Amino acid sequence: AVNPDLASERLAASFSVELLTASLDGGAERTRSRRAVVEAIENDPVFSQENQYFQSQNERYEAAVRRAVYLRKKIREMGWTENGPEVQYVNRCLSGDIALILHRVFMRSISMLGSDEQIAKWIPLATDYQIIGSYAQTELGHGTYLQGLETTAVFDAATQEFILNTPKISAMKWWPGDMGRSATHTVVFAQLYVHGKCYGVHPFILQIRSLQDHSPRPGVTVGDIGPKMNFQHTDNGFLQLQNVRVPRENMLSKFCEVQPDGTYVRWGSQKINYFTMTALRISVLSEEVILPLKKACTIAIRYSAVRRQSKLKPGEQEAKILDYQTQQQKLLPQLAAAYAFHFIKIYLDELFSKGYQDIQSKNFDSLPELHAFSSGFKAMVSQHGTSGVEICLRACGGHGYSLLSGLPSLYTRIIASCIYEGENTILLLQTARFLIKCFMAASAGQPVPPSVTYLSSVKPGKCPAKDKLDFLSPEIYLKAYEQMAIRLISSSAAKLRHFIQSGVDEYEAWNQCTVQLEKAAKAHCHYITVKNFVETVEKLDNEAGIQKIMKHLCDLFALHGIFSNMGDFLYDGYLTAAHMDLVTASYLDLLAVIRKDAVPLVDAFDFTDKTLNSALGSYDGQVYQRLYEWAQKSPTNQQGNPAYGKYLKPLLQNTLSKL
Amino acid sequence: AVNPDLASERLAASFSVELLTASLDGGAERTRSRRAVVEAIENDPVFSQENQYFQSQNERYEAAVRRAVYLRKKIREMGWTENGPEVQYVNRCLSGDIALILHRVFMRSISMLGSDEQIAKWIPLATDYQIIGSYAQTELGHGTYLQGLETTAVFDAATQEFILNTPKISAMKWWPGDMGRSATHTVVFAQLYVHGKCYGVHPFILQIRSLQDHSPRPGVTVGDIGPKMNFQHTDNGFLQLQNVRVPRENMLSKFCEVQPDGTYVRWGSQKINYFTMTALRISVLSEEVILPLKKACTIAIRYSAVRRQSKLKPGEQEAKILDYQTQQQKLLPQLAAAYAFHFIKIYLDELFSKGYQDIQSKNFDSLPELHAFSSGFKAMVSQHGTSGVEICLRACGGHGYSLLSGLPSLYTRIIASCIYEGENTILLLQTARFLIKCFMAASAGQPVPPSVTYLSSVKPGKCPAKDKLDFLSPEIYLKAYEQMAIRLISSSAAKLRHFIQSGVDEYEAWNQCTVQLEKAAKAHCHYITVKNFVETVEKLDNEAGIQKIMKHLCDLFALHGIFSNMGDFLYDGYLTAAHMDLVTASYLDLLAVIRKDAVPLVDAFDFTDKTLNSALGSYDGQVYQRLYEWAQKSPTNQQGNPAYGKYLKPLLQNTLSKL
Repeated sequence: AVNPDLASERLAASFSVELLTASLDGGAERTRSRRAVVEAIENDPVFSQENQYFQSQNERYEAAVRRAVYLRKKIREMGWTENGPEVQYVNRCLSGDIALILHRVFMRSISMLGSDEQIAKWIPLATDYQIIGSYAQTELGHGTYLQGLETTAVFDAATQEFILNTPKISAMKWWPGDMGRSATHTVVFAQLYVHGKCYGVHPFILQIRSLQDHSPRPGVTVGDIGPKMNFQHTDNGFLQLQNVRVPRENMLSKFCEVQPDGTYVRWGSQKINYFTMTALRISVLSEEVILPLKKACTIAIRYSAVRRQSKLKPGEQEAKILDYQTQQQKLLPQLAAAYAFHFIKIYLDELFSKGYQDIQSKNFDSLPELHAFSSGFKAMVSQHGTSGVEICLRACGGHGYSLLSGLPSLYTRIIASCIYEGENTILLLQTARFLIKCFMAASAGQPVPPSVTYLSSVKPGKCPAKDKLDFLSPEIYLKAYEQMAIRLISSSAAKLRHFIQSGVDEYEAWNQCTVQLEKAAKAHCHYITVKNFVETVEKLDNEAGIQKIMKHLCDLFALHGIFSNMGDFLYDGYLTAAHMDLVTASYLDLLAVIRKDAVPLVDAFDFTDKTLNSALGSYDGQVYQRLYEWAQKSPTNQQGNPAYGKYLKPLLQNTLSKL
Repeated sequence: AVNPDLASERLAASFSVELLTASLDGGAERTRSRRAVVEAIENDPVFSQENQYFQSQNERYEAAVRRAVYLRKKIREMGWTENGPEVQYVNRCLSGDIALILHRVFMRSISMLGSDEQIAKWIPLATDYQIIGSYAQTELGHGTYLQGLETTAVFDAATQEFILNTPKISAMKWWPGDMGRSATHTVVFAQLYVHGKCYGVHPFILQIRSLQDHSPRPGVTVGDIGPKMNFQHTDNGFLQLQNVRVPRENMLSKFCEVQPDGTYVRWGSQKINYFTMTALRISVLSEEVILPLKKACTIAIRYSAVRRQSKLKPGEQEAKILDYQTQQQKLLPQLAAAYAFHFIKIYLDELFSKGYQDIQSKNFDSLPELHAFSSGFKAMVSQHGTSGVEICLRACGGHGYSLLSGLPSLYTRIIASCIYEGENTILLLQTARFLIKCFMAASAGQPVPPSVTYLSSVKPGKCPAKDKLDFLSPEIYLKAYEQMAIRLISSSAAKLRHFIQSGVDEYEAWNQCTVQLEKAAKAHCHYITVKNFVETVEKLDNEAGIQKIMKHLCDLFALHGIFSNMGDFLYDGYLTAAHMDLVTASYLDLLAVIRKDAVPLVDAFDFTDKTLNSALGSYDGQVYQRLYEWAQKSPTNQQGNPAYGKYLKPLLQNTLSKL
């Protein structure tokens, strides 16, 4: 039975949830197909995540390997295609709780960087899990800065082999997934030396464990890096190499090769490789950031419509916590952000798909823009998503802190997205470098990529808004965002120039401007996200009920951004304090409006209870019953209490006579 | 051997670390005494936290009970006094990783609320752990809003007993520590009913488990609530009661009593009880918020002085990450905050100690101010501390995400401080209510408590600063903070008045202003914290080297607050955009200045390696070696890999023939 407090929220919906779900999925047909896949997976006990919150790292790992191996079988049974939408749906409902993910990256890197012969040899074996691969790039001493990697591969012409070494402790490979306990092979990145000359970092296929008994190969020391904040199911590993030899043919050689006599040859451009990493950064956003944020919103908003606490007015029934302005101010901006990011992801996917076509036809012009986008949006979305999940967790009070709410695991996992695939600060500074370059070009009247043409339109001015309703007009707030982004970029550029002109060397000047450059890059991404939300809403004009509520969310996302970054908008006087009062008034009004549709808006994300795996977030809102039932399955209640016999009983045994 | 990169940082210190440590401790004598206690504890293997990151919830619980029981013995052996400083030092070095903490709250509540007979009966038993107590207040359905508790205690005059019930699932006690698996008794809070009339929430002593075999008493259902984000060592419990009878004498009756005929009598004031909770809120800040923040700063700053990554200039050695402005901007404001909070805690302790004296002499005048302070500062410090630890974690990149860094556990624990002992938003709104009241009084020319007299000095104006160095003058920035706090409080009051005058009812008007009221309360606490830091620095005039560096930290804390909340300062024109440029310039200059002393400034916190329990934060800076050594102790490396035999071997066994 659905909790009546939740049922009444659904009756009051101003739009059709089913229609919105279909719109988010990209059509009702896709919704049906996704639901069928989710059902097939969730009815299969191998994929149950029911006991996840009670399992040790070893248990999680074992279950994840089992799922990975079983999933291959399932995919064949069901007749799903290898990279088709069904496999995406599976990933969505398994929430990434599966092993051998890096095996896919192993395969992708061979396909991308390997010669035809290498592909023909290794890919069929990997496809059937006849070997298990990993991807060994990061070292103890180096992450994002790849040029600094310390693993070496020295060519030995006499034996036609490379000799691989991790010459010091900091050179040890550290973090590669699937390597700690599973992989038999890996693609290892090492500084290539031929006849004493270093040619930089190159990838080599290396066998690390015996195919007969899984023991480490001679010269190889390999193991698991131990417990992490999350990803207990993944065997992130370490790898030390001592004079391990691989044949010359194992250097991945689509773009370069060491010939038998030691001659180093390079063909084509490495840019395509660069593009793969760029695209990867965007592709992780869906499953690892946007979905977790949507889940956290679903859990926190459903719970807030069921939880009653304290009274809004004396004598009344206790109020739903969602009716408090402070609770709305926590949750509804996160909900708006989840939609904003859903739409920006579609925009980025289109941009990248077009970029990929260009590249296929050997046009590399869009690469700098794509790189700047992937860096900036990965950073902005992951950072905003992480803080959004934290807000949702805290908004659920004590029960949010229980693992059974699902929120702690969402948080401890999403925070990793701020670090992996490029640390956020470094990524934002790469975006900033692109923006500064474009700003200089625009100032000099040169052409710039389409996404940054707005940089040419620097005109100081004042916002024309006169009334709080004016701030519900996209032209008004878009202009304010544009103005703010231009101002932050142009003033960073001016400051850089000023430093350099006063004799500070270029690199030092850059370092001294990085705090402001990072801010400028965020402002740009924020602006583009609002702009894209506005354009998405405009395109919904044939879906009236949905357009109206999406417009409210878009306004909320935009005004919340102004409200929370007031200083950046007030700074140059484009907005005044009086404007800020209007923004605040409209923003608070919007909270009350969207609050009415909050539950239907999370229902539209269409998560099953099993996918959410949350005692607080289930569709029926029976939160207390479920917390109690789930708690009883905990090992703390299932196994005895040895502490009693060992430590407490001796203290308590004579008490009875004294009472 | 100390890593040379870390050793060189220490050689460059501008002040004596030993002197600063003694100053923080309140004297060299106390430093010596603290170190002796820490040594005694850390040399005792029972208290080792070495394997903490590898243990299951059950193992953590068992170890924590063992420690609690053993600690009693140790305290006696060492001749330490029950509530003396030594026990505080012990808690500091055990990092709260010990059981039977709620047993202390059980005892405190009996001492505070019990009659002399009740104290004489129960306290000696509890002191010797002949009974184990808990404190059962929170229910599944109610936390901060105590009036809503649903557990009932109905007086039965015929048997002279109370009949206790949790009549519905939401009435079940949920969260009490030490209750899930340890406690034999608890103080349970229930709505008292006599002859059908409800007298509100009262505390009762209740036995929940047999003293003979620890089984639940008849009518009692008790167990553990399962896994949480942290606090795995604590058996937070649930408790259901079905017609459980306790004798009339078990209602704690210092302030009220049910007489044999059912007459309800109340003596004295309940305010003193209220004060206990108020004081508790402040007392948790040291161990649960400020210490973890100091630890996180120590770990992240030491690591950042050892970690080299990328180059500041081409051709140079890779740079220490602490030399990047963005890394300084992440970590150094957290370091400044750790010092600011250390000092505000001393201020609050003095305030409360004075308040306690007043109350002893029956003067309750300071209670509203103390309540407002404890609420606001608990909220501000816990929120700031939590976000500070998160920033430290992320600033360490991938290695920060390993449990072995110590940072994930610090984070998952400190975030709980935003929720327990009063949810932060609710606390801030209580502070806001006090501030609005004081502002009204001040406006009407009535006297207000000393801490808020500044509210009477509303004078619009402009900041007189002309140069970036002016912003290193405390009068300049204090005035800006004062102005900003007054403005936020007065405009919230004006908005409230406006709503009420336009016919909105008082409660609804309050709810509609809460987003701004919360902000006003934070601004007040921020201002007081800066002011107290300034005053603390002034008092250090006889310790020149220390005063100078503390002045830098104070300036940084103040300017970082302005830089990060620019809008609040720009809003009314007290600061202009030109001022903001000066603030930014001074703020960035300070980062470079404090960076030079960053390592000595965390060394002064004087954490032992065992207390920090971090592979990244140890004094010697041997981070890579330690990560590697610790990882090898993980159960993922110590136990076999059943997943290989079960799932991978069948796939791999025929591969050899194909390679």
